[in-house]
Amino acid sequence: MHPIAEPSLLLNTSICKANITKMAARIRGWQGDFRPHFKTHQSAKIGQWFRDAGVERITVSSFKMAHYFAQHGWKDITVALTCTPIHTAAINQLAATINLNILIEDVASIQALEDHLENPVGVFIKADTGYNRTGIDAEDFITLKKILAHLKDTKKLIFIGFLTHAGNTYHARNMAQIKKVVDPALEKMLALKTFLRKEFPLMELSWGDTPSCSIYNDFYGINEYRPGNFVFYDYTQVQIGSCSMNDVAVCMAAPVLATHPQRNEIVVHAGAIHLSKEYIQLPNGNISYGKVVKINHALEWDTHDIIGEVKSLSQEHGVISANKKIFAHIQPGDILGIIPVHSCLTAHLMKHFLTTEGNFIEMMK
Amino acid sequence: MHPIAEPSLLLNTSICKANITKMAARIRGWQGDFRPHFKTHQSAKIGQWFRDAGVERITVSSFKMAHYFAQHGWKDITVALTCTPIHTAAINQLAATINLNILIEDVASIQALEDHLENPVGVFIKADTGYNRTGIDAEDFITLKKILAHLKDTKKLIFIGFLTHAGNTYHARNMAQIKKVVDPALEKMLALKTFLRKEFPLMELSWGDTPSCSIYNDFYGINEYRPGNFVFYDYTQVQIGSCSMNDVAVCMAAPVLATHPQRNEIVVHAGAIHLSKEYIQLPNGNISYGKVVKINHALEWDTHDIIGEVKSLSQEHGVISANKKIFAHIQPGDILGIIPVHSCLTAHLMKHFLTTEGNFIEMMK
Repeated sequence: MHPIAEPSLLLNTSICKANITKMAARIRGWQGDFRPHFKTHQSAKIGQWFRDAGVERITVSSFKMAHYFAQHGWKDITVALTCTPIHTAAINQLAATINLNILIEDVASIQALEDHLENPVGVFIKADTGYNRTGIDAEDFITLKKILAHLKDTKKLIFIGFLTHAGNTYHARNMAQIKKVVDPALEKMLALKTFLRKEFPLMELSWGDTPSCSIYNDFYGINEYRPGNFVFYDYTQVQIGSCSMNDVAVCMAAPVLATHPQRNEIVVHAGAIHLSKEYIQLPNGNISYGKVVKINHALEWDTHDIIGEVKSLSQEHGVISANKKIFAHIQPGDILGIIPVHSCLTAHLMKHFLTTEGNFIEMMK
Repeated sequence: MHPIAEPSLLLNTSICKANITKMAARIRGWQGDFRPHFKTHQSAKIGQWFRDAGVERITVSSFKMAHYFAQHGWKDITVALTCTPIHTAAINQLAATINLNILIEDVASIQALEDHLENPVGVFIKADTGYNRTGIDAEDFITLKKILAHLKDTKKLIFIGFLTHAGNTYHARNMAQIKKVVDPALEKMLALKTFLRKEFPLMELSWGDTPSCSIYNDFYGINEYRPGNFVFYDYTQVQIGSCSMNDVAVCMAAPVLATHPQRNEIVVHAGAIHLSKEYIQLPNGNISYGKVVKINHALEWDTHDIIGEVKSLSQEHGVISANKKIFAHIQPGDILGIIPVHSCLTAHLMKHFLTTEGNFIEMMK
């Protein structure tokens, strides 16, 4: 066994590669383009596994991340971040060497960017289909027409289509609830295509989010799909119903620091700076910062061998609410596994993975 | 103005240095030793400001952090982490070159460490004075005596005394509530000293936590103090009453990506990977991930010019619930300031600071 003396994020490479292959096959089945979001793994090495599955175009969440993947040979990148005049320098740097797409959602930024960009970039208008975070309300045709009128006159900003992230699927807890979010969002996207068909016959629709891409099957009219989290999945996705516990590819190896059988608690070295403070509410109403499972000496975790739930986190420590009967078998210095609530945030904090084969995989620094 | 195109953690060096000087003076006033916790700033440069204030001994939260500060000339370090047999290699590496103190709270680990340590290390027994995370219940004299009996026979583990972290002061919201946590915790610590006076006449008591060290004044019998967060303070500490908003030394510069006046929301580039998902509940019952203020062109923030509160966070984005009247003055590309809820976690995520003088200060990588 790899000697683990501090919190380490384990990666099961077989599960991870299977997740990639499966999602690539699903999207091929819909005749869609697969432009996976790389914010979850942030790793050149794991990016290569996507390349092996035929992926050539990717999505990232920041210019720093775009720069990192451009340096690792990716030539077609969408930065899924609404751009404003302050992003001019970053756009110019990237668009000089790769095919870059950006998001736009206001007229003033279009004008400022058109004036200062040195190379053409693809532009998606961010459409809000119900998540209510960023984006123009997909039914606000007046504002959309105004933006499109400005984009028609630009030479540097090449309108591609509409991009949406139905992030509200994360509130769903089963297929019926996902459908309730996806159906109206899809309808709004299709309405945009119908509405603008004559003026922009080549217009594309770009769709995001792991929950819908994992289990929904009735996509229609969408051109590309940008799920990201599915590469690892996590406890939240299990709760949503996007995957099973056996599809989760990452697990935090957490050293036991202390056991408190009198209050059914185990304290592990794995805190907010390792897992993140993202939590879920369990069906019984309790809060969990991670599901705790056993890890064997080959660094494999057993999702059927449940120790308990992480009930609270401070900077370095996690407190596990544990099943009474396991205390006879656990002592300080042992290693437990924690299925993270949100693998994107956990990976971002850890900065590298320890594979079940015992190798380290680095992420963007 | 420093051109800010992505989230940047601003540091007001004058406020920070004043926080250090003030805390050093308070602890001198109690005739106590100041062993500040460096987990908040994790920076050699800011460590130097502590040295300038006469500090020679420090506390850290991990062996990695101890290693970093040892490399930067710190010779007396307490790793405030309960140690178990898996920490042997890390202890041996550090104790070869510096005065190292560790925490212990179980008999099996004492024996294993005594067998494998190469150099003597100072040992604190972690005492639980009411926080109920790690540590032996400070009133459980039976267990404490058993541990002390084992420590009496060790040659490598040199018993120093008891260390506690009254982290439950973080639930307090005023001086009276802090007193309600501190008084019984202090009493328990003093009882240990009384109880063991004859056997361990040189026994020391080590006390933590920023809230009590910031405003409590009736410490008695404590030998050293380990506050950490006070170096920056944050929105939580303001809410507890440890400091005023003007004592907070850090502020996230967050680019505005979109404004939504129709729902009184502003979307900024500053999300869970910048601020952390730590939140507080405001007196009105709402959740906040940060207080939003104006920043001027000299990168100074004005804590009286309130824009609103960060009401939700996703990976890269923050949504601000904003005052209606400010929308006429804010547009995409502007920079707003966010007073973080928990500066330790925010600094850990950002990995460097941008000072109000326009310099970068690096943290441990």
